[in-house]
Amino acid sequence: MIVLMKPGAPLSEAREVMRRLSQSGHDAHVLTAGQNTIVSIASSRLREPELEILSTLPGVERLVASNSPYKLASRNVQPTSTIVKVTDNFRVGGDQIAVIAGPCSVENEEQIVSTARAVRSAGAIALRGGAFKPRSSVYSFQGLGEEGLRLLKQAREETGLPIVTEVIDHEMLDLYFDDIDVIQIGSRSMQNFPLLKAAGESGKPVLLKRGMMATIEEFLMSAEYILAAGNPNVMLCERGIRTFENATRNTLDLSAVPVLKEKTHLPVLVDPSHGTGVARYVASMSKAAVACGADGLLIEVHIDPTRAVSDGAQTLAPKDFETLMVELELVAQSVGRSLRPVADGATQCELQEQALTATSW
Amino acid sequence: MIVLMKPGAPLSEAREVMRRLSQSGHDAHVLTAGQNTIVSIASSRLREPELEILSTLPGVERLVASNSPYKLASRNVQPTSTIVKVTDNFRVGGDQIAVIAGPCSVENEEQIVSTARAVRSAGAIALRGGAFKPRSSVYSFQGLGEEGLRLLKQAREETGLPIVTEVIDHEMLDLYFDDIDVIQIGSRSMQNFPLLKAAGESGKPVLLKRGMMATIEEFLMSAEYILAAGNPNVMLCERGIRTFENATRNTLDLSAVPVLKEKTHLPVLVDPSHGTGVARYVASMSKAAVACGADGLLIEVHIDPTRAVSDGAQTLAPKDFETLMVELELVAQSVGRSLRPVADGATQCELQEQALTATSW
Amino acid sequence: MIVLMKPGAPLSEAREVMRRLSQSGHDAHVLTAGQNTIVSIASSRLREPELEILSTLPGVERLVASNSPYKLASRNVQPTSTIVKVTDNFRVGGDQIAVIAGPCSVENEEQIVSTARAVRSAGAIALRGGAFKPRSSVYSFQGLGEEGLRLLKQAREETGLPIVTEVIDHEMLDLYFDDIDVIQIGSRSMQNFPLLKAAGESGKPVLLKRGMMATIEEFLMSAEYILAAGNPNVMLCERGIRTFENATRNTLDLSAVPVLKEKTHLPVLVDPSHGTGVARYVASMSKAAVACGADGLLIEVHIDPTRAVSDGAQTLAPKDFETLMVELELVAQSVGRSLRPVADGATQCELQEQALTATSW
Amino acid sequence: MIVLMKPGAPLSEAREVMRRLSQSGHDAHVLTAGQNTIVSIASSRLREPELEILSTLPGVERLVASNSPYKLASRNVQPTSTIVKVTDNFRVGGDQIAVIAGPCSVENEEQIVSTARAVRSAGAIALRGGAFKPRSSVYSFQGLGEEGLRLLKQAREETGLPIVTEVIDHEMLDLYFDDIDVIQIGSRSMQNFPLLKAAGESGKPVLLKRGMMATIEEFLMSAEYILAAGNPNVMLCERGIRTFENATRNTLDLSAVPVLKEKTHLPVLVDPSHGTGVARYVASMSKAAVACGADGLLIEVHIDPTRAVSDGAQTLAPKDFETLMVELELVAQSVGRSLRPVADGATQCELQEQALTATSW
Repeated sequence: MIVLMKPGAPLSEAREVMRRLSQSGHDAHVLTAGQNTIVSIASSRLREPELEILSTLPGVERLVASNSPYKLASRNVQPTSTIVKVTDNFRVGGDQIAVIAGPCSVENEEQIVSTARAVRSAGAIALRGGAFKPRSSVYSFQGLGEEGLRLLKQAREETGLPIVTEVIDHEMLDLYFDDIDVIQIGSRSMQNFPLLKAAGESGKPVLLKRGMMATIEEFLMSAEYILAAGNPNVMLCERGIRTFENATRNTLDLSAVPVLKEKTHLPVLVDPSHGTGVARYVASMSKAAVACGADGLLIEVHIDPTRAVSDGAQTLAPKDFETLMVELELVAQSVGRSLRPVADGATQCELQEQALTATSW
Repeated sequence: MIVLMKPGAPLSEAREVMRRLSQSGHDAHVLTAGQNTIVSIASSRLREPELEILSTLPGVERLVASNSPYKLASRNVQPTSTIVKVTDNFRVGGDQIAVIAGPCSVENEEQIVSTARAVRSAGAIALRGGAFKPRSSVYSFQGLGEEGLRLLKQAREETGLPIVTEVIDHEMLDLYFDDIDVIQIGSRSMQNFPLLKAAGESGKPVLLKRGMMATIEEFLMSAEYILAAGNPNVMLCERGIRTFENATRNTLDLSAVPVLKEKTHLPVLVDPSHGTGVARYVASMSKAAVACGADGLLIEVHIDPTRAVSDGAQTLAPKDFETLMVELELVAQSVGRSLRPVADGATQCELQEQALTATSW
Repeated sequence: MIVLMKPGAPLSEAREVMRRLSQSGHDAHVLTAGQNTIVSIASSRLREPELEILSTLPGVERLVASNSPYKLASRNVQPTSTIVKVTDNFRVGGDQIAVIAGPCSVENEEQIVSTARAVRSAGAIALRGGAFKPRSSVYSFQGLGEEGLRLLKQAREETGLPIVTEVIDHEMLDLYFDDIDVIQIGSRSMQNFPLLKAAGESGKPVLLKRGMMATIEEFLMSAEYILAAGNPNVMLCERGIRTFENATRNTLDLSAVPVLKEKTHLPVLVDPSHGTGVARYVASMSKAAVACGADGLLIEVHIDPTRAVSDGAQTLAPKDFETLMVELELVAQSVGRSLRPVADGATQCELQEQALTATSW
Repeated sequence: MIVLMKPGAPLSEAREVMRRLSQSGHDAHVLTAGQNTIVSIASSRLREPELEILSTLPGVERLVASNSPYKLASRNVQPTSTIVKVTDNFRVGGDQIAVIAGPCSVENEEQIVSTARAVRSAGAIALRGGAFKPRSSVYSFQGLGEEGLRLLKQAREETGLPIVTEVIDHEMLDLYFDDIDVIQIGSRSMQNFPLLKAAGESGKPVLLKRGMMATIEEFLMSAEYILAAGNPNVMLCERGIRTFENATRNTLDLSAVPVLKEKTHLPVLVDPSHGTGVARYVASMSKAAVACGADGLLIEVHIDPTRAVSDGAQTLAPKDFETLMVELELVAQSVGRSLRPVADGATQCELQEQALTATSW
């Protein structure tokens, strides 16, 4: 059972709810996440009269029965979709499809700045790029580290694109907090709980990738760690799960998109580059992701994929990315959305005219 | 190594190629599948001069190096996409997206005829329905059998829709050969080799579903059994693979669509009903399938899903199917295709105008 | 709910139970399998008084609550372990560990007869060997067919070992019924329901292999098809499931052994050859299988593995098989069993005597 | 290609090898791990004369061709099995099977001290127990933390058993370094690279669990992180992988034991408690693990499993653990090993006499 407080209700009211529950012997916790404050009750043995009293306390919006292992992430608790706003131009979860693009690893100034310019010109709204790389092999290139972050900042300065980059440790988060616009938590770190808590406490937008063998429920439980620490700015990213099939690097689980859109209010992105591991399948899977309701894409682009130090096989060249963006816009419009900002009524109308009866989530 | 004969080359020419190879101690076989005739050579120790002689023999088109476990199914052997033509109105593999719909099981006259009318009116071009059901439990409803086939034929008579129905045994294929328009071979039978051979010998269009545990390569190797028996009319159908995720009944492997379109010339369909097992995810995944290049869809529709004897949870009501078809047409057009016949140049042009730069396979 | 009839109760008594149930509006079926006769009741809305009446009817042993999708296979229905007796010397499910060995495919007289002699001399109690091979590729060796069966019979004549061989089609079962001692149903046929029914009607001992992506529950539901057709002589065989791990051909799921021994009374064998796909891991996994309670093993042995036409990499040479059998006997004794016949009490005692010294802690 | 230095060769000699390689344009690194020092060469274009010169340099033992992504962990580099020695009584990797037992979580003094006494008296040689628990849900019990460590130390004082406990963060490792005898790195942290490096630098014995989604190769690549940081005291632990089967919590991949024993010199343990998730399957799988060559077991035992705050369903009561230990000794002896110390020749001989022809790894 959870008690959902009214938006803007002062914390003192939630604490009063908790105090009443404790007096009656129930184990309760107050959780806040942005606009939401809830009181979570561990005991399920609340009697009818107790429920009635609770619902009349100041600030209480409603009581929600919940055996779900995640609460703040649940669409039961918050029916309207969350829009994560990084900058005025970079919002995820609304009508606009957000495309984040860039190389797997930052390699040098020429590479990152040129790639950033190319993806911005094709319509990407943020730059991805790894400075600290979690690599399976201790003998593989582990990223440029601090130097990589410096180059990302330079690319941001020259293009205005916000930076999305992976953080592999909560110490690192403290050190480089100011440099990063969106904290990416990678597949291998999805259950690094100290890191999730730190990302939650940071308050900064977080892009959380699904573990390659995590169930959708576990994925949401990891998001809950961030929300429960008070940070409502969470974006989820499907990036392929591990199966027996080996024609692709992973099996991109696109059905996770409608499942997630049903179960949670958080925005959902898809990474077709890691999901397939093969550049020539990226365009098809990008279109499929948009068609089934994804709020955005994370695509690997490199100024010269054949010379990329990592993940070259799954990386698009700028020209192919540009073509893809044009094709994607058509698919986006066919489901009532767009890659371009859909801020004012006019554009919205135009879109809807084209998309006619199409329904989005 | 395989020797590809010219289209229309008499079999005697292929036999002459084989005779020459046998003389030189090589193990060779002649295979024909519709328009294709090939001579497959097991030994890979052909010397340069032997190759030269082979390429000059009458009827030889070209020599293709092939370690692939499938040959006739390979796009290396036949670069142009196969269009399987069941009736004038039901072609799979061209610009038109083929939607096949109907109930899991045939239950009674009212149910199958009403459903057939509903799906035809919404734009489906064929009727699916099970008469002989392969069920995991010996205690589950196993289908109406012969009576079910009779009802399917009645529905065909009243609507003109061709019948797609599952065959679980090669004896059954002999018995009901004339009643069926498309032989469906189900997931559990994908490696029932006697059945595959029988389907191959029948010459009738075959819809082959991927085994829930089969790799894409094994899927194509099963298609090869049908092709090698002389039947070029094979449609492939992705229907979900088994993984650890259980929010959905299976994990629909949509990346199989671009992978298959690359590796084979055979048309590729997607079954989002079995792929997800949940009716409310079917629309999203249908759109995704079309967006990533599928040539058609297999969708479960029942006049009243709540009363279906099997698979009700994943079945659409006619009203929802109708809405989906309208939405799907928009997505199809966004990738340069249509659910409607794209026979004459005018429609094609119009479509391409709308789709602009979109590229299909 | 199921009604378990007394052993030997005449079928008329079971039919009387069914008649009573039908009168009260319940949907019931009579099922018999060897010593068992049960009445299965689909409806779960039996009232207390009805239950009492049922339990007093002639021939009724007891009532068993069962939502299980398998009934005759369940240990709830039959608590004592089934011992399948093929010949006096070949019993599976008791204290003796049954080792069945032989080549993947029958190749020629010399190969099969020599291998049969070698495995008999090392202690195997039956000969395995494929005559009709279900092969993923239409271009692979598909077995010697009828000629292979003739050679197996010759090997049986010379060694006295019963024959275990795969049947891939129910027509084939009719044709070769008299030649085979144990019908093997392979992994790919685990859900070939017409074949399961035919094997059930045959009454002959059946070795049913688990599908490579079948759950344990589905495995038992397939066994139920055979039992429900009246054949109690079913042996189950774990042979590896398909996972993401590729250091081995499959992942041998040994925990299936204790799970199966708990859920069913049927004997459980393990095939470490297909389970690992690597000859050098076969000995370790054979010992593990015996240690965790398997009733027998199915091991690939070939007189010369390097020249085997199929599965050579996972096949033992006779010398290694001999060594393994000696080591296995030690492990078998450590868990109170033996590879040798343990017919009379004396042998059992002897075993325990040997094992005694070991218990001193 | 790697250059293996002689044991005890001074680092300066390895650096000289590296310097020569750099001069010739090859990219080389020096790695040390306990007794091993190697020079790893990225480039594979070494010419014959260069190889000859290298092999004559002071301190060079031999040159090993290696494309393997792990080197120090490989049995090619170190053919003899590593024995990790924690205390005189707790060595893993030799003839003695090491059993580590204890509760999932430390709960209170009475619980941990009583359990420690019980497992010691049954023959366990170390105590496991979680103080900091990585939990999928933010709302689950996360362990007693520092207080838990204090209680573990008290149990160690009272029983003499060394402590094996999970560390989830490298900061935590710094804080509690002196309290812990063996650092356990859990399944979810197998690719937490900063933690692996920190564990490597600590020099303390590490028990590394396989990720539930990790291949055996990735598992060894994670061990390589610890070895490459200079810590040779690594024990590997198979604990079940995630598959489609759900009769068990995970699928215990016992074939990983012979695969690992072949590929690496590091000792291999098995955790049948997490591997199955079901207490009644733990005994069978423990015996199987020992039979196929595991060097030890990690077993969950709680003084009262029905009241355990976490993982009660997979936990043994002391009485059942005691019975298991007696049965395990029989299995251990059947493969030439023992749960008891096998220090002096006499015992070893006795054992080998019993085990006769049995071969261990």
